[in-house]
Amino acid sequence: MKFIRYADGPRTGWALVEGPLARPLTQAPWLGVRPEGHLLPLDSLRLLAPAEPTKIVAVGKNYRDHALEMNEGIPENPILFLKPTTALNDPDGVIRRPRLSNRVDYEAELAFVIGKTARRVKPEAAWDYIFGYTCLNDVTARDIQKGDGQWTRGKGFDGFAPVGPWLVTDIDPSNLAVTARLNGQVKQASRTAQFMWPIPELLAFITACMTLLPGDLVTTGTPAGIGPMKPGDVIEVEVENIGILRNTVSEEYP
Amino acid sequence: MKFIRYADGPRTGWALVEGPLARPLTQAPWLGVRPEGHLLPLDSLRLLAPAEPTKIVAVGKNYRDHALEMNEGIPENPILFLKPTTALNDPDGVIRRPRLSNRVDYEAELAFVIGKTARRVKPEAAWDYIFGYTCLNDVTARDIQKGDGQWTRGKGFDGFAPVGPWLVTDIDPSNLAVTARLNGQVKQASRTAQFMWPIPELLAFITACMTLLPGDLVTTGTPAGIGPMKPGDVIEVEVENIGILRNTVSEEYP
Repeated sequence: MKFIRYADGPRTGWALVEGPLARPLTQAPWLGVRPEGHLLPLDSLRLLAPAEPTKIVAVGKNYRDHALEMNEGIPENPILFLKPTTALNDPDGVIRRPRLSNRVDYEAELAFVIGKTARRVKPEAAWDYIFGYTCLNDVTARDIQKGDGQWTRGKGFDGFAPVGPWLVTDIDPSNLAVTARLNGQVKQASRTAQFMWPIPELLAFITACMTLLPGDLVTTGTPAGIGPMKPGDVIEVEVENIGILRNTVSEEYP
Repeated sequence: MKFIRYADGPRTGWALVEGPLARPLTQAPWLGVRPEGHLLPLDSLRLLAPAEPTKIVAVGKNYRDHALEMNEGIPENPILFLKPTTALNDPDGVIRRPRLSNRVDYEAELAFVIGKTARRVKPEAAWDYIFGYTCLNDVTARDIQKGDGQWTRGKGFDGFAPVGPWLVTDIDPSNLAVTARLNGQVKQASRTAQFMWPIPELLAFITACMTLLPGDLVTTGTPAGIGPMKPGDVIEVEVENIGILRNTVSEEYP
């Protein structure tokens, strides 16, 4: 199934996608898929980030090729960090380059959304806690990330987490193509089969530390090929069997 | 004024403290102080963390003495990190030592709660955005913090952010004593006058990156004297003119 979160004038909500139409739901789909009201034409709706996270948990260097590219060696454990929920951005949202940075990079990632409270989950039970999958661009002010040492600020600017375009259930995430295209040119191209920590191990590692709540987002790291974006660029993150997350880049906030 | 968030049987809410009594409010006090119902005896209530954060923003090494103690030099900027909201713990809550760590430290801090949406705030306007002040223990699994490099996991375990006991408004935070006592023995004792980045500069720095929302918590760093806690210990964080946050430490989760 494919779900969107949408705005239709002042109304926002979740809907189930049925071809060119969207069937509105009474609540977030991980709470139970309950239709209400009339079918809406999909192209009349504005898409919103398809998650309602209390936190966004991210992992550094989960693809072997990216760890080598960053010249930082392969860590023993996944390296976790958080993006603030104020970084969430919509599928057609604009990524604004902050005044404070001279280099803002794309990072194409597969993300998943938690369906039920997950605390100290064993790898073999991980699939029970994952509701669905989407695309995420882990936008990073590379100069600030490196200068600070801690990644929070460089990855935490408002709008630095575009997510979408939809949330897809019932797919096998273990060997999906993950691609970034900048102005149509392929910059990142890898497969989730290259994960050093596959999703079950990642979920077990995270929830051994912190409880994940329904709607929380976990993003799984980015492959080799990261690079800068400039105002006017169009950046696409595509994950096989999910879709294309397309955002434009603009000048810093006025 | 002094506000608590409390549980009274199944009911939770905010209240204004009036001597030994608590006057229930209809909503969080930063939305407007609106009393409702009967006065309650303060000692009949269970205190909850007095904030409703969408994020907890923390700063490393804001006291000159602690930066020197950690032997890491004095950074050019404040170093920001996030604690997940699942780390929140109540004034009388138990700090559980995770299985994964051999060293869990206390860090006594002054924290403040945001009263209205704060985005790119100038230092001179900072006070308009701060609703009140409280105590926070930035509990840290020191071994994990050092091993990971990124601080998210070492500082992000469930229950690693005890906050309280109450939220105090109308105080001057610029020169308050901040103290940690372990089993009654003073371990940290400094003053907020030692901040390298006073609160207005800190708020400006954070909100140049990310928008803070009403109820969000910002914690201002810890002075010299950090150290480990073991099961059975009682750890107190006291901030002058606010109060004493007292928590006990127990064995890891069963």
